[in-house]
Amino acid sequence: MTEIPEDHPRYESLLTRHRIEAGVDAGITSRQGLIAQGRGEAFDYLLGERTIESADAAERAAAAQLLLAERPVLSVNGNVAALCPGELVELADVVDAALEVNLFNRTDERMEAIAAHLREHGATEVKGLTADGRIPGLSHERAKVDADGIGAADVVLVPLEDGDRAEALAAMGKIELVVDLNPMSRSAQAADIPIIDNIIRAVPNVTRHARKLRGAPREELDAIVAEFDASAALDDAERAIRNGTTQE
Amino acid sequence: MTEIPEDHPRYESLLTRHRIEAGVDAGITSRQGLIAQGRGEAFDYLLGERTIESADAAERAAAAQLLLAERPVLSVNGNVAALCPGELVELADVVDAALEVNLFNRTDERMEAIAAHLREHGATEVKGLTADGRIPGLSHERAKVDADGIGAADVVLVPLEDGDRAEALAAMGKIELVVDLNPMSRSAQAADIPIIDNIIRAVPNVTRHARKLRGAPREELDAIVAEFDASAALDDAERAIRNGTTQE
Repeated sequence: MTEIPEDHPRYESLLTRHRIEAGVDAGITSRQGLIAQGRGEAFDYLLGERTIESADAAERAAAAQLLLAERPVLSVNGNVAALCPGELVELADVVDAALEVNLFNRTDERMEAIAAHLREHGATEVKGLTADGRIPGLSHERAKVDADGIGAADVVLVPLEDGDRAEALAAMGKIELVVDLNPMSRSAQAADIPIIDNIIRAVPNVTRHARKLRGAPREELDAIVAEFDASAALDDAERAIRNGTTQE
Repeated sequence: MTEIPEDHPRYESLLTRHRIEAGVDAGITSRQGLIAQGRGEAFDYLLGERTIESADAAERAAAAQLLLAERPVLSVNGNVAALCPGELVELADVVDAALEVNLFNRTDERMEAIAAHLREHGATEVKGLTADGRIPGLSHERAKVDADGIGAADVVLVPLEDGDRAEALAAMGKIELVVDLNPMSRSAQAADIPIIDNIIRAVPNVTRHARKLRGAPREELDAIVAEFDASAALDDAERAIRNGTTQE
């Protein structure tokens, strides 16, 4: 693995590209995942490749919501696993959440490769392989979840999720936290807390907020969640993408 | 190959996706190409997946410029070959241009696969394999062109071109026609005639204009080229992407 100097002006972008390519080599990232990565790059470019203020507020609200949850689950797909495996394991640890692999194009090989990749990055338990639960309203392969994982979760973080599944999870009554760079996507629209940010910036920032909020009383966490306005955050992100400058 | 019904509301998008996937299977489209395809999808989505008026004007100016050229060359990379091989062969025929394969990640296998793919779609001569010319200012592999192709061309159509090479071709004094969905890209900025449109819509529309203009006197063609304002077209496209509605 080539080391990319951290002071390189395109460090984050190069690191992202590098990790996604390595994900293909490891059998983790699919063709659809590469195309999705490109779509994300374009939105991030228009956003100025930065965490806008409303996204930081969403990340703080997500941290509070994960800390309030009784059974939080972080859902992991091929791109998420390739882009920030260690960062997700760290977040799961800080908010005491389970990690569950969920794929748009589910194959046993990719499920196993992703679970192994998460374990290499420190995960002790990875759900998703039992697949004894179902999300109502989705076709067979797409519906599979672990009954004691996403099936029983009250709060789920679903980064880079497909629109159909994001809507079906919302319909199940889960509190849904979505990371997506397109504020107009169905996933972002379906979320209780949409985080319009690059997952590479978003996950460590949710963790940072969670660390700060960990000792806070429930009323304070409840207030942070209640104050967050999903619709205003989506409007703000769309405004930044459409009208914002790409160079600050 | 599955047939996609032409009246499907997402016909063009599905066709594009289908062709790019087939391109991977045929060894034509690279990983970088899939990511680039995703970036293009996002910009096209924001543009409303339509040919805006200023892009149609650019396509008409490009047709006029190709008809005026003494040695026009259409440059073909992996995504271009996957997305519109037949359409490019048709354009080359109508404006009497040469086709030349040029890859960002050049390997003999991909060069051969793309040349073969173009021949299957009706090309009689495909340049790029001789590689006896060089573009000054680029590293060895990236600089390779055919001396009697792009090396000797006065007008080149470079769709979906890398920024470095687009700038190097402009520095050689070539008249450069670029197809790119990002009006802020260096390729689009380097072009004499930037066409901010999906290549799947752009190439057939350049051909349509070329057919209409084929018998026109040189003065008329010169006037069409002279009237085209690249900078205004780029501004217009950026405005459409940033402020335009995606649903007309």
